[in-house]
Amino acid sequence: MNQDGLFITLEGIEGVGKTTLAKEVIAYLKGIGHKTLLTREPGGTDLAEKIRSILKDPDHVVDASTELLLMFASRSHHVSQVIAPALATGTSVVSDRYVDASYAYQGGGRGIPEETLDYFSEVACQSVSADITILVTCPVNIAMGRVLSRQERIDRIEQERYEFFERVQDAYIARAQRSSHYIMIDGSQDVSKVKSDLLESLTKKLAG
Amino acid sequence: MNQDGLFITLEGIEGVGKTTLAKEVIAYLKGIGHKTLLTREPGGTDLAEKIRSILKDPDHVVDASTELLLMFASRSHHVSQVIAPALATGTSVVSDRYVDASYAYQGGGRGIPEETLDYFSEVACQSVSADITILVTCPVNIAMGRVLSRQERIDRIEQERYEFFERVQDAYIARAQRSSHYIMIDGSQDVSKVKSDLLESLTKKLAG
Repeated sequence: MNQDGLFITLEGIEGVGKTTLAKEVIAYLKGIGHKTLLTREPGGTDLAEKIRSILKDPDHVVDASTELLLMFASRSHHVSQVIAPALATGTSVVSDRYVDASYAYQGGGRGIPEETLDYFSEVACQSVSADITILVTCPVNIAMGRVLSRQERIDRIEQERYEFFERVQDAYIARAQRSSHYIMIDGSQDVSKVKSDLLESLTKKLAG
Repeated sequence: MNQDGLFITLEGIEGVGKTTLAKEVIAYLKGIGHKTLLTREPGGTDLAEKIRSILKDPDHVVDASTELLLMFASRSHHVSQVIAPALATGTSVVSDRYVDASYAYQGGGRGIPEETLDYFSEVACQSVSADITILVTCPVNIAMGRVLSRQERIDRIEQERYEFFERVQDAYIARAQRSSHYIMIDGSQDVSKVKSDLLESLTKKLAG
């Protein structure tokens, strides 16, 4: 655990319901008396939101190395300007995605080696790691169906093929199985069941 | 030498006259029958020019790690989309700054270790290295005077202290002294002398 605020991250492919659950986590933490901050990646600062726009623009051709460097630039700014200062003043931070997303998307998805990701994490994350990571999983066809139903224009990353998201989710799951700080949630269930599963797991984790 | 086009980079602190000399090099290469492309860093592609704007915006607080990652993201895109394809089709490329600038600015200027810069270069540069690098030097007070006289608003990087530019220029010189692919030009001289020095050195280098 961090000395001060608690750092909780939510991970998963597009369409699993992370964003809704992030708000639930915030409400839960407020309920137990925490000062809270909700943020997201890529983004979380003015500069990092500009990087997010660059990354999501369907008109850009972005090779794997450039995407990797931009993701970690965004993360580095987010950590140094927002996450680390908030945690240091006792605020609990909930981030919709953090460094595990790079192991899943750039690693599992694009084939960037794990050692490279470890190296970049060391440069960008200043030893700031999540106390709890909530991984929300969902069969890819269901998650994709949700993404397509809620918007007219899909962004560059969402245009990726089905198999890409399978690889990303498999990488997330493999990583979750190797570490005790993860909570895994089945996001394909009814939303009220997803929320109750989440709050139950979170309560247990914080008690333990 | 690259198999196809020739890759020439110009380096130096702000105000030494690089941009003028880059055009001289292009004219020289055209004169000896080369197809040419003039480009610059950070920038050189739509995406990389967006990164350049982020980096130069005086309203952003940019820590050393974020700056490092953004510089190499811009470079990675520039190499993969512009420099490597041009060289491969036999076009000679002249770039106003390239990877040596990171050794000087992020290394000498900000204290990023050389091994880190080597690592990032490997990720971003795809083995594309300059055939000739022209380092233009100038006493910092003269160079700074030129920068201040030509514009009303100075950008974030140009706001740096005098000592910072001393460290950057020292790092450039140290690097130039260790490698045979450099041409060093005294940019404090009269502009016609600077140009004639450049063309003489370039002719010798290409003959040798």
